[in-house]
Amino acid sequence: MALLSRSYIRLSAGLSAIHAVKDAGPVSHSSIVSSNLGITPRSENFSDWYNELVLKADLADHSAVRGCMVIKPHGYALWELMQRALDDMFKATGHVNAYFPLFIPKSFLEKEAEHVEGFAKECAVVTHHRLKANPEGTGLIPDPEAKLTEELIIRPTSETIIWNTYRDWIQSYRDLPLLINQWANVVRWELRTRLFLRTAEFLWQEGHTAHATYDEAEQEALTILNECYTRFAEEWMAVPVIKGVKSENEKFAGADHTYTIEALTQDLRFIQAGTSHHLGQNFAKAFDVKFVDRDNTQQFVYATSWGVSTRLVGTLIMVHSDDKGFISPPRISPIQVVIIPMGRDDATREKTVGASNEIADQLKKSGIRVKIDLREKESPGFKYNYWELRGVPVRIEVGPRDLDAGTCVIARRDNGEKASVALADVAETAIGLMDVIQAGLFEKAKAFRDANTIRVNTWEEFEAAFAGEGGAGVVLAHWDGTPETEEIISEKTKATIRCIPMTPLDPSDVEPGVCVLTGKPSKQRVIFGKAY
Amino acid sequence: MALLSRSYIRLSAGLSAIHAVKDAGPVSHSSIVSSNLGITPRSENFSDWYNELVLKADLADHSAVRGCMVIKPHGYALWELMQRALDDMFKATGHVNAYFPLFIPKSFLEKEAEHVEGFAKECAVVTHHRLKANPEGTGLIPDPEAKLTEELIIRPTSETIIWNTYRDWIQSYRDLPLLINQWANVVRWELRTRLFLRTAEFLWQEGHTAHATYDEAEQEALTILNECYTRFAEEWMAVPVIKGVKSENEKFAGADHTYTIEALTQDLRFIQAGTSHHLGQNFAKAFDVKFVDRDNTQQFVYATSWGVSTRLVGTLIMVHSDDKGFISPPRISPIQVVIIPMGRDDATREKTVGASNEIADQLKKSGIRVKIDLREKESPGFKYNYWELRGVPVRIEVGPRDLDAGTCVIARRDNGEKASVALADVAETAIGLMDVIQAGLFEKAKAFRDANTIRVNTWEEFEAAFAGEGGAGVVLAHWDGTPETEEIISEKTKATIRCIPMTPLDPSDVEPGVCVLTGKPSKQRVIFGKAY
Repeated sequence: MALLSRSYIRLSAGLSAIHAVKDAGPVSHSSIVSSNLGITPRSENFSDWYNELVLKADLADHSAVRGCMVIKPHGYALWELMQRALDDMFKATGHVNAYFPLFIPKSFLEKEAEHVEGFAKECAVVTHHRLKANPEGTGLIPDPEAKLTEELIIRPTSETIIWNTYRDWIQSYRDLPLLINQWANVVRWELRTRLFLRTAEFLWQEGHTAHATYDEAEQEALTILNECYTRFAEEWMAVPVIKGVKSENEKFAGADHTYTIEALTQDLRFIQAGTSHHLGQNFAKAFDVKFVDRDNTQQFVYATSWGVSTRLVGTLIMVHSDDKGFISPPRISPIQVVIIPMGRDDATREKTVGASNEIADQLKKSGIRVKIDLREKESPGFKYNYWELRGVPVRIEVGPRDLDAGTCVIARRDNGEKASVALADVAETAIGLMDVIQAGLFEKAKAFRDANTIRVNTWEEFEAAFAGEGGAGVVLAHWDGTPETEEIISEKTKATIRCIPMTPLDPSDVEPGVCVLTGKPSKQRVIFGKAY
Repeated sequence: MALLSRSYIRLSAGLSAIHAVKDAGPVSHSSIVSSNLGITPRSENFSDWYNELVLKADLADHSAVRGCMVIKPHGYALWELMQRALDDMFKATGHVNAYFPLFIPKSFLEKEAEHVEGFAKECAVVTHHRLKANPEGTGLIPDPEAKLTEELIIRPTSETIIWNTYRDWIQSYRDLPLLINQWANVVRWELRTRLFLRTAEFLWQEGHTAHATYDEAEQEALTILNECYTRFAEEWMAVPVIKGVKSENEKFAGADHTYTIEALTQDLRFIQAGTSHHLGQNFAKAFDVKFVDRDNTQQFVYATSWGVSTRLVGTLIMVHSDDKGFISPPRISPIQVVIIPMGRDDATREKTVGASNEIADQLKKSGIRVKIDLREKESPGFKYNYWELRGVPVRIEVGPRDLDAGTCVIARRDNGEKASVALADVAETAIGLMDVIQAGLFEKAKAFRDANTIRVNTWEEFEAAFAGEGGAGVVLAHWDGTPETEEIISEKTKATIRCIPMTPLDPSDVEPGVCVLTGKPSKQRVIFGKAY
């Protein structure tokens, strides 16, 4: 949390420099353009708002293939920054990257029955390895002579093919631990898809580690949860998350137990943003992966797996963005500062573009990702909306009259505040705003979550909390710990147990109580919510 | 070529510090270990040498899926460094990354007939989207009720799905150029596979750009060839390449013309290391991608595509490595310097490990990727072989007696030279060797290619050059320019035209002559060779 505490100091210093200024000209224009570019307000239809935002902010596009998305350059640049930060964290905690095949032989999926039952059924099945001209018509058909003797499945996740490989790589305790991560595409044939949040093909990283003992695997699963996923979500994405353990019903099929980080969206639903699984010896037994330990006896290997995906982009949008469009936390913004030089005639533009270049150079020297919008035909108002829609945290407006006065205007994307700043101070102010906005987004999201956290004690209160169609926020309630009760609750209310929190949100949450449904004893409150 | 000219200066300075020293102890041991770890010598069987090297140097492994490889952590770390360097070059030349679907609807492949005929037939065909329990037995079967109405093909390359998307993204000349690259996996169902060089699934980047004019597309194809691929091959991989144009028979199916970089292997064959295609308007016409130009008329868009793949790793091995194993050019070595602290008792090890840490810290400060081999049970000789096999450019041996004398031993992987160096100078010497070895590998490979370049003028000479089973080096000969003649030559000798060089290897190569086969007129010599 070093970043955030440092940020608090800058927050107060930074805010004093920022106060609203009137800027009538461009605003009136931008309101016209705004209606052209506009997206449905969140209050009207949150789902439409999200879908339109993803498309209009140039983050992703639908494709010709059902359920598959095109990640557009702006969205992919964001994903690259997220990848880089996560990859650095994985490497700092001792992991290396590798690459395993896209295809999984069907027989591999048959080996871990629980795993298949859990989610490996809806998948893309490759049956042929050649196309040929259709002898009875036009076009191409799969060549009947090129039918595979065993079907191949496009990986929905890679535990099976990886553990089949690990059998050859692990003989002795000296080969352990094996700490490997893979960046890859995976395919799950989802019925209902939504850009970034749930697509048939998505990009992710999947860690697959092998250990000599249960405890070491447990430590690994926790390291990823704490040192990588939680830190990334909170310090880079500015998304506060609740860390917890999944119930039996919600854990990964094939895991001993599953850790999760859960984020609350603005429509009061949960997104499971990352999971870290202790797989016990399940996959080692299914694929016969043993090692000779220090006592010269053969043991099955313990495993973990863990992953985050392009779903994180959807999480980011649903937590921070607003009716103007995307809001991107500075640390992972492909463009952190956009500079808009104004003026219609060449002489004026020469001045404003010159000043813009100087500001950009100063920012680049400090490692800030900056863009100057040099388009000549678009109005300033159009550009304001354009970059607001795409989530750029800070905008600097370089106008001729301001320039004559030795100033320019700096505007924050997160809260819309604008200020007139001396040219000599603008780079420093913009740099200072990076931490201010980063911390502000986190605090705002955390305050929102706190304001939408409730504790219910009776079934009537529970049902009332989940009565509407929409999300219900963080609902803390006692539960008797049985899968049966969880299922009944889920059927009645559509609420599921998002997690059993590892750190109580309030000390009273870990006091014993009685289950809201059955009245049976409960050790602690768990988190119920509606999930994406 | 700035890197190389700078290197020459360091080369002479560096070499004076490096002279062979006797080191009898470990050598006698290492020769024993060597036979355990040993790989078939190149002279005995080049193909076995390559296959064994890839496996034993921990670069890649075979997988349970026919023709698909596992890229092991050491090999993947190399690929990551290659990706990073290439990606920086693409971005420096104005490109952005994006991501398009893995699946291509079958009908898309039917649209560009020449493209399909060329190579899209041997591919992985997805026909079902669900597995179900086999009602007539055990295990899983593709669910007959989940048969796709249109088959999906795993992308062998993405021109079709991308140009289908570009139709929506391009309306006006103001949307052009579109300069997009994708890092992805692709699948081509190859009959004969070989790790890195030809696998069913491989990793690559594919650039797909859209332009308003033929000339602009031409400039783009050349920028990639010259500024990215050639520079990357020569300055990063230390692999000299011949830039040229492909003949009609050898060009990419669907291209107007194809540029290539060709590398010569140690067994005198060619590897096509990267290609850059001017696609003309072929894909724009197949997918109806038009734009309104400045004159307000509709035009089809011009296109390029270009790619390099994990095949580059195979190229690297075949050009530089030796009978001891992999030789990695320093600029893309995952580990650039390995330090081996010696000594068997704790007191000695404390000293040698301490000195090793100090050297490592100095190297890290200069950005050198360094590893200290702290394993206690393995002998120094074992470790020497271990890291030589894996291609680490420089080894530093920290022994107790040397340490008392204030020195240590530094050894070069590329030529086996060892020298005793004062501890105070060892970091600087190692850093200097990075450029020395990088330049030395390039020069050695270039000298090898020059020594294996011949010019033949008659059919008898041509046939003699290609008489053996193996490669024949760079054979420059006159050709009448017709596909028919190229086909006859290829049938008779297994030689193909690798390229029509863009820069003559010798001024005489562009003097007119007569075709070696038909005696018809020829404008210039072209390069014939046997290809991987």
